Amino acid sequence: MTVQSNGVHKSSALPWVQKLSKDHDLVLKTFRLLIADLCQQFNGGHPGGAIGMAAIGVSLWKYVMRYAPHTPDFFNRDRFVLSNGHTCLFQYSFLHLTGYKAMTLDQLKSYHSDRVDALCPGHPEIEHEGIEVTTGPLGQGIANAVGLAMATKNLAATYNRPGYDVVNNHTWCVIGDACLQEGVGLEAISLAGHFRLNNLTVIYDNNQITCDGSVDLTNTEDVNAKMRACGWEVIDVEDGCFDIEGIVRALEQGRSSREKPTFINVRTVIGLDSSVAGTAVAHGAAFGIKSVADLKALYGFNPDGHFVIGETVRQFFEELPTRGEQWVQEWNQLVGDYTAKYPELGAEFQARVRGELPANWQSYIPTNFPEKATASRASSGLVFNPIANNINNFMVGTADLSPSVNMIWLGKVDFQHPNLRTNCNINGNYSGRYIHWGVREHAMAAVSNGLAAYAPNTIIPVTSSFFMFYLYAAPAVRMGALQHLQIIHVATHDSIGMGEDGPTHQPIELAALYRAMPNILYIRPGDSEETAGAWIAAINAKKTPSIISTSRHALPQLTQSRRDGVARGAYVLSEDESATLTILGVGAELSFALEVAAKLKAEKGIVARVVSFPCQRLFEQQKLDYKRDTLRRHRGIPAIVIEPYAPNGWERYADAGVCIRRFGYSLPGKAAYKFFGYEIDVLTSKIAGYLDQVRSDEYLRGEFVEL
Amino acid sequence: MTVQSNGVHKSSALPWVQKLSKDHDLVLKTFRLLIADLCQQFNGGHPGGAIGMAAIGVSLWKYVMRYAPHTPDFFNRDRFVLSNGHTCLFQYSFLHLTGYKAMTLDQLKSYHSDRVDALCPGHPEIEHEGIEVTTGPLGQGIANAVGLAMATKNLAATYNRPGYDVVNNHTWCVIGDACLQEGVGLEAISLAGHFRLNNLTVIYDNNQITCDGSVDLTNTEDVNAKMRACGWEVIDVEDGCFDIEGIVRALEQGRSSREKPTFINVRTVIGLDSSVAGTAVAHGAAFGIKSVADLKALYGFNPDGHFVIGETVRQFFEELPTRGEQWVQEWNQLVGDYTAKYPELGAEFQARVRGELPANWQSYIPTNFPEKATASRASSGLVFNPIANNINNFMVGTADLSPSVNMIWLGKVDFQHPNLRTNCNINGNYSGRYIHWGVREHAMAAVSNGLAAYAPNTIIPVTSSFFMFYLYAAPAVRMGALQHLQIIHVATHDSIGMGEDGPTHQPIELAALYRAMPNILYIRPGDSEETAGAWIAAINAKKTPSIISTSRHALPQLTQSRRDGVARGAYVLSEDESATLTILGVGAELSFALEVAAKLKAEKGIVARVVSFPCQRLFEQQKLDYKRDTLRRHRGIPAIVIEPYAPNGWERYADAGVCIRRFGYSLPGKAAYKFFGYEIDVLTSKIAGYLDQVRSDEYLRGEFVEL
Repeated sequence: MTVQSNGVHKSSALPWVQKLSKDHDLVLKTFRLLIADLCQQFNGGHPGGAIGMAAIGVSLWKYVMRYAPHTPDFFNRDRFVLSNGHTCLFQYSFLHLTGYKAMTLDQLKSYHSDRVDALCPGHPEIEHEGIEVTTGPLGQGIANAVGLAMATKNLAATYNRPGYDVVNNHTWCVIGDACLQEGVGLEAISLAGHFRLNNLTVIYDNNQITCDGSVDLTNTEDVNAKMRACGWEVIDVEDGCFDIEGIVRALEQGRSSREKPTFINVRTVIGLDSSVAGTAVAHGAAFGIKSVADLKALYGFNPDGHFVIGETVRQFFEELPTRGEQWVQEWNQLVGDYTAKYPELGAEFQARVRGELPANWQSYIPTNFPEKATASRASSGLVFNPIANNINNFMVGTADLSPSVNMIWLGKVDFQHPNLRTNCNINGNYSGRYIHWGVREHAMAAVSNGLAAYAPNTIIPVTSSFFMFYLYAAPAVRMGALQHLQIIHVATHDSIGMGEDGPTHQPIELAALYRAMPNILYIRPGDSEETAGAWIAAINAKKTPSIISTSRHALPQLTQSRRDGVARGAYVLSEDESATLTILGVGAELSFALEVAAKLKAEKGIVARVVSFPCQRLFEQQKLDYKRDTLRRHRGIPAIVIEPYAPNGWERYADAGVCIRRFGYSLPGKAAYKFFGYEIDVLTSKIAGYLDQVRSDEYLRGEFVEL
Repeated sequence: MTVQSNGVHKSSALPWVQKLSKDHDLVLKTFRLLIADLCQQFNGGHPGGAIGMAAIGVSLWKYVMRYAPHTPDFFNRDRFVLSNGHTCLFQYSFLHLTGYKAMTLDQLKSYHSDRVDALCPGHPEIEHEGIEVTTGPLGQGIANAVGLAMATKNLAATYNRPGYDVVNNHTWCVIGDACLQEGVGLEAISLAGHFRLNNLTVIYDNNQITCDGSVDLTNTEDVNAKMRACGWEVIDVEDGCFDIEGIVRALEQGRSSREKPTFINVRTVIGLDSSVAGTAVAHGAAFGIKSVADLKALYGFNPDGHFVIGETVRQFFEELPTRGEQWVQEWNQLVGDYTAKYPELGAEFQARVRGELPANWQSYIPTNFPEKATASRASSGLVFNPIANNINNFMVGTADLSPSVNMIWLGKVDFQHPNLRTNCNINGNYSGRYIHWGVREHAMAAVSNGLAAYAPNTIIPVTSSFFMFYLYAAPAVRMGALQHLQIIHVATHDSIGMGEDGPTHQPIELAALYRAMPNILYIRPGDSEETAGAWIAAINAKKTPSIISTSRHALPQLTQSRRDGVARGAYVLSEDESATLTILGVGAELSFALEVAAKLKAEKGIVARVVSFPCQRLFEQQKLDYKRDTLRRHRGIPAIVIEPYAPNGWERYADAGVCIRRFGYSLPGKAAYKFFGYEIDVLTSKIAGYLDQVRSDEYLRGEFVEL
């Protein structure tokens, strides 16, 4: 039997579904009992949602989704995102049933076990076969799905040619109630409607239950009306626990939607048929031994059997790997023909599929920069605009700060639906690579995770905003780091020097978060040369996101700065063998370190060396000798850091610091520096004073002193 | 003339508005030129929005809002929130015109100046007269407004009696496009609709322009339909630049709404009448000297005049302070009569107005706790549930984690509209103090800021969730700290010991953020006794929010722990004069420190003292001697911290640490501890090994070593 899983279906009957419907009852029961057993074995986990969604799963994996269990990374596969990630057993079990090789029954039983090599963690993780994105923090998955659908649109618009749809996959996303409550989900929903992503279908597991009780305790919206207002097509499925044909029909409508993303509101029952069906208790705890046995009896299974998957059920799924391999072969053939017909485009496409950049990407970066004082946000544009202009891998966006972030290149085309008409001039279509995210920092980062997760390094998303608003985006930035996705976040206004916008915009403590966060590079370059170094480090970090943290205000261009120094995290900017002091300079305040060193020498006879310290994480990765030689603290030379941020973390590298412990202040940039004591005179006397103080109080050498 | 500013107005004509309409044109022009001049003086700032909203401002301050310029903190005043805070000149200028004493014309001119004592920072700040909340980060203000309206509802339901509406103020909130895009705004909108806050009116400055261009570049929703779907009443005002009568009528409809919050969609023109009217350029830059002069000429003003406020305009506003004082007197009389009639209730109400807790609040905290191992999230319930039960100041909520956070007390009543009917049992009305926030962590914190901002300490909001999800809430937690609001955040699952939910839920780096954030206490108590100490510290912190960070899993109860030790941030748990090592124990892993010390002594003959270190911020506030005596590093004794978090920041207090640099791992709690080396055997040998290593490599003493 050939399963028609693409195209429009207008008839009310779906023969290929009906043909197999005799087995549906058994498949659903088997699936539900499998979930109950897996949770009961651990006496925990999240059984209710997975059980309620059984028919949704059968509809997707058996009838609708195009994927290849034996070639999990098939490039043109449909993407599936489980945004309610705590119901992961739902996905794990279908991966097992549909023939993903890694997901053996033995592995399935590793759910919540203490096996270190388990493939069934408490939430889906991107590292494992058949999982597209790591989910769990609610609202992230639906935003990722929007990104996956955008990736398809962009690649298709860029590479497809008549008769050669080398990219045309659909994205499917299952959500629970939470993804309709979390702000990041709502932002992403708004974006998907705006971009008219007809290749995205969201399936709402509408069981009306959350941890606290029924959803109407806290949400009494008209959900369907809200989705329609956001530009979505809405389809209701009343009997979501059993009506596989109805679900399939709705899903097919989703795939064939003309100009809108589709929202399928599927009414289900959490923990169906169990003793706790339809209640919050079914959400996050095993049902209990007796209750599971009762369910088996109710279903006509042996109450003493466990993890039973009968032959009929095996047969129901067994064709799927073969079907998948056929799609893989058809696609390989298509890409071969396409490359023969369009050799240059085909080569570029295949390089994208492999996640490669053009070999000459560094050649677009200027070797020299203007000598005049330049804001590092402007430097960032000088470095990156030519790359963005020339290399299709980069999709570049901003959360409504185009005039501030300098990410626009001449001739840029917006990523927009080609039929969009606006009240201002735009030049947009789906092949465009400049994304207006709106004032939605969190979705900007979360959707970008989806763009990056489409395939490794095929798309490298670049986001941009004020640094302070990467606190809004932080949960998604974290998910990018956790998933080893290459995403480059460009942050401006990263210092009190940004001025009069005041304490709500001055990021005193935010660097501490990103310096502590695993697997992310937080880089503060000090001038254009270092900004080039920051971009090179970020583009070279294939499995790590970066934040390039730039200034609003003009910075002097230093003769000593080196782009290759940035790659090492910290490097000596100004050496002196007779130095009795090291000053650590960072980012927008790097020039202060040099000026203070000069003044210390001229006025106090104190010889200071200066180290530029743009990235703690990169420095940590250096060899011990390099680190010691750079800091020279082992020779008894104290180090003092100058940075208008909270000092937390600098204690590792410095003995003292001119840092800030309070929130900022609304003053023009220079006045803000003055207010907080970041004037060369004041800094110089503070540092000279510290050296005196240390001589008189031996204890101070072991303590970090805030000057 | 008596201005009727309360009650239902069904007539289509508003005589008290029409009477004065002859002056409207001059008032609006004067206001717009004032804004243009103030920005031009600095050659920056945000003129366009404020100019476009002139008629909205006249409608609010002259005709509709109840407030008292000479008694800015009048308890029952209407609250006004400028959620699009960058248009702050709008509010500052009306504060000046309506007679707030501090806001002199001279002060008004301090906008964006380098005057350190300016009352006109780049965004409104709560510290200044007439400002209810600090805004700027978009989406926060509308959420605060929801909290202010909830505060009114709760106080009214608790204290009002027939004929004695001691609290009945309305909340007005002006928003721009961004507050309809930001997730936190959307969460708050959903909550306001659910809670049916008919005492909240949001005025949408619909100018269709954002920084990047026209709004439809990024948002093509049907905004009104979306608001209706969220349970809001929607009113359109077509000519928002001039139609003061229409705006007043809409606002009055908002005040008299029966069961819904009101959304007034006011069509305005950004930078009206200027050369950049209706464009993004009008948003964030001064118009230019010529352009401002042209505008003055167009308006029939002298192009060379600046900051001109004529006598007619002064007279238009001059009655407002007198009107305000009359309201103040009426309210004082009302509260006096009320207290005479209801002495006990009146006394309690007045104590609430003063922001006082009952003097005996500490008596509700148990003096002893069960000796059996107890999760600190359970300890938190033991400590706080009796307080919440007995003291009306506390409003306690959770982001859909009631079963996990232990914040429910026996007999609690939910904060809900009294007519709400749900699919599960509830006991709710507006006097209820348990808030189901839904899966909306960010709004939970942002709306709580509004609850707390209603009046200092009148309401003390308590939020709760998993610690990891305080990253979602972080921008609002920050705003609470910045505004010196007392809010207590109760976080559970704060360690890898939370187990199988895995790396998405294990907060490796989050403590680094909150330890670096100014003016917040991040407290990790180690057992029930320390949890009591954490709550006491948090309740005593009248101008500082706290995070009480607790464990999912059971912790042994220590005999040495002391609640008064928590107040000092760190204290000696186990002293030994002969010690050669200090172990710093923290929170859920505190008992490990004691066990390791015992094992080091028994097996290696190494004598270690143990310091419990629940809160870095509180420790920093101690005297230097106390800090040195507690840590004893000045005696050459190395300190080693044990905490399964990123080490960043511990370098200040320790020479080495058993910390975590990578993301977590999905394993049951004990297995996760084992996986990361947090077993007593492993910890003991790591620490003994470090002592050996230090002996052989002198440099190590100056470096923080990760074990």
